[in-house]
Amino acid sequence: MLWDAGKLGKQTSTGRYSGSMRATVIYGERDVRLEEVPEPVLSSGIDAIVRVTAACVCGSDLWSYRGIAEVPEPKRIGHEFVGVVEEIGANVNNIKVGDFVIAPFYDCDMTCANCLNGVSTSCLNGGWWGSHDREGGFADGAQGERVRVPHADGSLVATPEQPDPALIPSLLTLADVMGTGHHAAVSAGVTEGSTVVVVGDGAVGLCAVLAAKRLGAARIVTMSRHKDRQAIALEFGATDIVEERGEDGIAKIKEMFDGIGPEFVLECVGTAESMDQAIKSVRPGGSVGYVGVPTGGAELPIQRLFGSNVGVNGGVAPVRNYIEELLPEVLAGTINPGRVFDLELPLAEVAEAYLAMDERRATKVLLRP
Amino acid sequence: MLWDAGKLGKQTSTGRYSGSMRATVIYGERDVRLEEVPEPVLSSGIDAIVRVTAACVCGSDLWSYRGIAEVPEPKRIGHEFVGVVEEIGANVNNIKVGDFVIAPFYDCDMTCANCLNGVSTSCLNGGWWGSHDREGGFADGAQGERVRVPHADGSLVATPEQPDPALIPSLLTLADVMGTGHHAAVSAGVTEGSTVVVVGDGAVGLCAVLAAKRLGAARIVTMSRHKDRQAIALEFGATDIVEERGEDGIAKIKEMFDGIGPEFVLECVGTAESMDQAIKSVRPGGSVGYVGVPTGGAELPIQRLFGSNVGVNGGVAPVRNYIEELLPEVLAGTINPGRVFDLELPLAEVAEAYLAMDERRATKVLLRP
Repeated sequence: MLWDAGKLGKQTSTGRYSGSMRATVIYGERDVRLEEVPEPVLSSGIDAIVRVTAACVCGSDLWSYRGIAEVPEPKRIGHEFVGVVEEIGANVNNIKVGDFVIAPFYDCDMTCANCLNGVSTSCLNGGWWGSHDREGGFADGAQGERVRVPHADGSLVATPEQPDPALIPSLLTLADVMGTGHHAAVSAGVTEGSTVVVVGDGAVGLCAVLAAKRLGAARIVTMSRHKDRQAIALEFGATDIVEERGEDGIAKIKEMFDGIGPEFVLECVGTAESMDQAIKSVRPGGSVGYVGVPTGGAELPIQRLFGSNVGVNGGVAPVRNYIEELLPEVLAGTINPGRVFDLELPLAEVAEAYLAMDERRATKVLLRP
Repeated sequence: MLWDAGKLGKQTSTGRYSGSMRATVIYGERDVRLEEVPEPVLSSGIDAIVRVTAACVCGSDLWSYRGIAEVPEPKRIGHEFVGVVEEIGANVNNIKVGDFVIAPFYDCDMTCANCLNGVSTSCLNGGWWGSHDREGGFADGAQGERVRVPHADGSLVATPEQPDPALIPSLLTLADVMGTGHHAAVSAGVTEGSTVVVVGDGAVGLCAVLAAKRLGAARIVTMSRHKDRQAIALEFGATDIVEERGEDGIAKIKEMFDGIGPEFVLECVGTAESMDQAIKSVRPGGSVGYVGVPTGGAELPIQRLFGSNVGVNGGVAPVRNYIEELLPEVLAGTINPGRVFDLELPLAEVAEAYLAMDERRATKVLLRP
């Protein structure tokens, strides 16, 4: 198969070619392959090379896999990883070779105005895994053996020491799903003693339950029809399960909360149906915290929101800004968000990892290179 | 002219017919008339009759006047008034005959779950002026001589004593525009030392400036092209004026705040253009507080909001919940929101009041029956 090496990580003139490694490439609908690609090389002076210890497949990777998001040409995929630093650029100061690091699902400098405001996903100099950065270097996808990390000082957070291997799944959730669930709860404004409903029982929805519990919510309802996911939700702090959906689900939720609904609903799916469920379930004056990547093209219904004073807050989660807050609790074992992984596979079986998630045989798959 | 007396306030069988009064009736586009209508009578036991001291015309009344909102049949109009209680129902306890009272732009019981949550516009038993209440009585429009007020104990707030006549314009703003501007600021989350841009220089926009100042905003930009309105905005606490609109306005605002925009934008118009201006001006992670009644049918752009983590909060303002907080400052003269009235007319000239606002010769017109 011929492919455009440039799209897959051919190094720029500022880099050097130093061999090959294996990384995941998506070719189109239901077609992901582990392939030999050029090994990453330092190129900007502020970057690092990280050997991946663990990566995973995200619900949002499935949008491409299922053909809902177009894949015009083969490209690297994956955006969640933890690993060990192998090389650093000359101007990297906060990270050293040998550090165990967590990378958020994007890169960011943590020094620009947006990063300092807590919105590192809007970093003025940041970018996304599997694409070229502003300096012309390539940031590899995470479902591979190594990744070149632009803005290493900003993007990466090192653990104080090499972590217990048993903690790796939970540390890996700080790259995305735990921080994203947390963002749903923080954006909605969840407070001590409040009432919360979580729409979505995927890894993010389950983490949102954990996040709401952590923030002191008194009552947390999970909307789920899957017994195994319900069990994790209950373990994470859910107080109630609602299996109904649509109008029945809304009626059930309203009834549970004085006939008017809960203070907060956390939308962790991204479809028009799930957002509709969230907006119609929350009480007048309440707030929807949303983190599901919007799909399907439905806009937000302003007349309904206006009439009921329902706020909508959230977006692509700035998980990098949350790592320092959540990491100590993961290291102490106070929270165990790694419980969302229910399948672990070697990187060589990445195609099976996608299939298992696509067929809902797994909630979230951890990959070991 | 023949008209359906029922639509204009014919009393139910529980009431008594006791003569006539003058009240404003809208017939259709640019056709408002002061007419003889039946005088209001008590009917539910929990209602009151208020003699109107002052009323006014709202920007939202212009939607019907301009033919943007349909008027299928003649109806009473007006929803902002202050006055003196003339009669009370047998079960009214908080209000007594002779009290000077402020009425919000809707009626509410202040005892239901939504009222107690601060969202009295979603009162489970409330209603709107110019329509029949749930008990079958008629709640008159405010642009008239008298109004029957359902849920008098909840809806009305009495001043501690008869107010200085000079304070009446400011007291009247608590019925709508001051409380609505305040809601924009509160919904956005304006805090001490924060940065705020106000889109809209009508009465609500000007009150939003005053509200942001009151909440401690450090920098408040008014987007306005009218010198007289700019002057009031500056008096109310605006620190900057921006005359540009659209893309130029957005660029100017971004530039004023570190290239990224202010923390909060208060949308006080309700058109697609003004909401677009608000959403594109606010910084990533910021919040839009909106109170302009949405017109034009444009929904909220979820992809843009998601990508930039911009929250949208607000809606039809629960001004009744704010009266106790704002009233003491009006009575003490600490705030003087009545400055938004720039024309005062006798009720007999209500048609001219509408025309003056329609032609933008007046920002807001006060009517004296």
